[in-house]
Amino acid sequence: MEYVPRDHPRYRSLMEREKIIEGFKNGIVVINGLISQGRGEAFDYIIGEKTIPLAEDSIEVAVAMLLLSNYPVISVNGNAAALVPDEIINLSNIIDAKIEVNLFYRTEERVKKIVDFLKERGAKEVLGLEYVEGIPGLSSERRKVDPRGILKADVVLVMLEDGDRTEALKKIGKRVIAIDLNPFSRTSMAADVSIMDNVTRAIPLMIDKARIMKKLPKEELKKKISNYNNRRRLGEYIIYIKERLENEAKRLMSFP
Amino acid sequence: MEYVPRDHPRYRSLMEREKIIEGFKNGIVVINGLISQGRGEAFDYIIGEKTIPLAEDSIEVAVAMLLLSNYPVISVNGNAAALVPDEIINLSNIIDAKIEVNLFYRTEERVKKIVDFLKERGAKEVLGLEYVEGIPGLSSERRKVDPRGILKADVVLVMLEDGDRTEALKKIGKRVIAIDLNPFSRTSMAADVSIMDNVTRAIPLMIDKARIMKKLPKEELKKKISNYNNRRRLGEYIIYIKERLENEAKRLMSFP
Repeated sequence: MEYVPRDHPRYRSLMEREKIIEGFKNGIVVINGLISQGRGEAFDYIIGEKTIPLAEDSIEVAVAMLLLSNYPVISVNGNAAALVPDEIINLSNIIDAKIEVNLFYRTEERVKKIVDFLKERGAKEVLGLEYVEGIPGLSSERRKVDPRGILKADVVLVMLEDGDRTEALKKIGKRVIAIDLNPFSRTSMAADVSIMDNVTRAIPLMIDKARIMKKLPKEELKKKISNYNNRRRLGEYIIYIKERLENEAKRLMSFP
Repeated sequence: MEYVPRDHPRYRSLMEREKIIEGFKNGIVVINGLISQGRGEAFDYIIGEKTIPLAEDSIEVAVAMLLLSNYPVISVNGNAAALVPDEIINLSNIIDAKIEVNLFYRTEERVKKIVDFLKERGAKEVLGLEYVEGIPGLSSERRKVDPRGILKADVVLVMLEDGDRTEALKKIGKRVIAIDLNPFSRTSMAADVSIMDNVTRAIPLMIDKARIMKKLPKEELKKKISNYNNRRRLGEYIIYIKERLENEAKRLMSFP
């Protein structure tokens, strides 16, 4: 990795970049993944590069849904594997979920690289190499899913995912939890629970919450979900952004 | 370069991406530059991929400042060189400014590549290979500036620049003009004049304005600058973004 001075005020964000770059060099991340990372950075800037309370609440709903699920699957792409490999493995252990590598720009070679990468990091099982063309309505490479993974899942956690595919998962009856910094994206719009947060903050928080919420009675988890409305939440996210921009503008304009 | 159909709705943006990727293949752009490009794309998308009137006004202020400057320098990094090499050369001729290659991830080899690239394109002089460690408060590679360039300048035009360095330029008494699509960036905050626009639109517009404004009396140029307040302008940019996002939210969600 390139040297990033520790005293750099945007050290965290630059280190994320380094992880993505490392992933690119290892063949885990594609060039488009570099551009996507930049896009995420822009939205993270807009929300202030922190987990906002609304996102934390959506995380709790998501964790409740995962804990109640019969067959949860975490769908992992190149950027997710590069940014939060250990965190994905930890989360999968705590909520007892399968991990499946699922790529927008799929090649067998890249699937294999990511599977190996996650296994080296300690994942016991990583799906994605075996597949059926299980998602209709997508071009052939993109409809592939593992018959022991996403095809069988009731709840799928996706992150940094393409809108087409998220919509397709909904069409085949999955409940979808999405981590996506852009509340306007089709992924955020299509998901049952949208977490507007950076995966590097959201997944560690999901792990913490899952540890605590595992001990709660099922009834309480169900209540958490039943009160939730994702469209309302997206509206709240957008109001949050609006207010943040207003405050930021005021702050700038009142101290010339 | 990859083939992009001319009638593609995002032709301009895709061609920019191709230029950056080309620059990456030629060793002018670092991988981090691909991520920066992605970030810029997202902000450009948010403002509607056009030069907004507020940015055009800031461009006029910037041009006035450059025309009044005794020793203006255009600081060029890899992405700038890849995106707008000819435009930078033209602008430097019209406003009689030095060009200096100044890199965040500096290697002698990459400085030389960019210097050569700009000279092949017709630049008479490109500084940056000779240097002193002229900017205090930065780690050693990043404090290097050319004694005939930035060190001596009264006004420095930076684009797609790192916040640390922009702040450091201010500390050593330079007036800084920044082209940066992110109004929240430390570069935008630190600069005397922040142009929230894509360099591929802003520099050509600066050239046009400089041609016209060169003929204006100095008093008029001075007036243009004296009425300007950059913090207020940043506030106005952010309000503009807020309104764009509100409209987007309404369109997508028929949101009240």
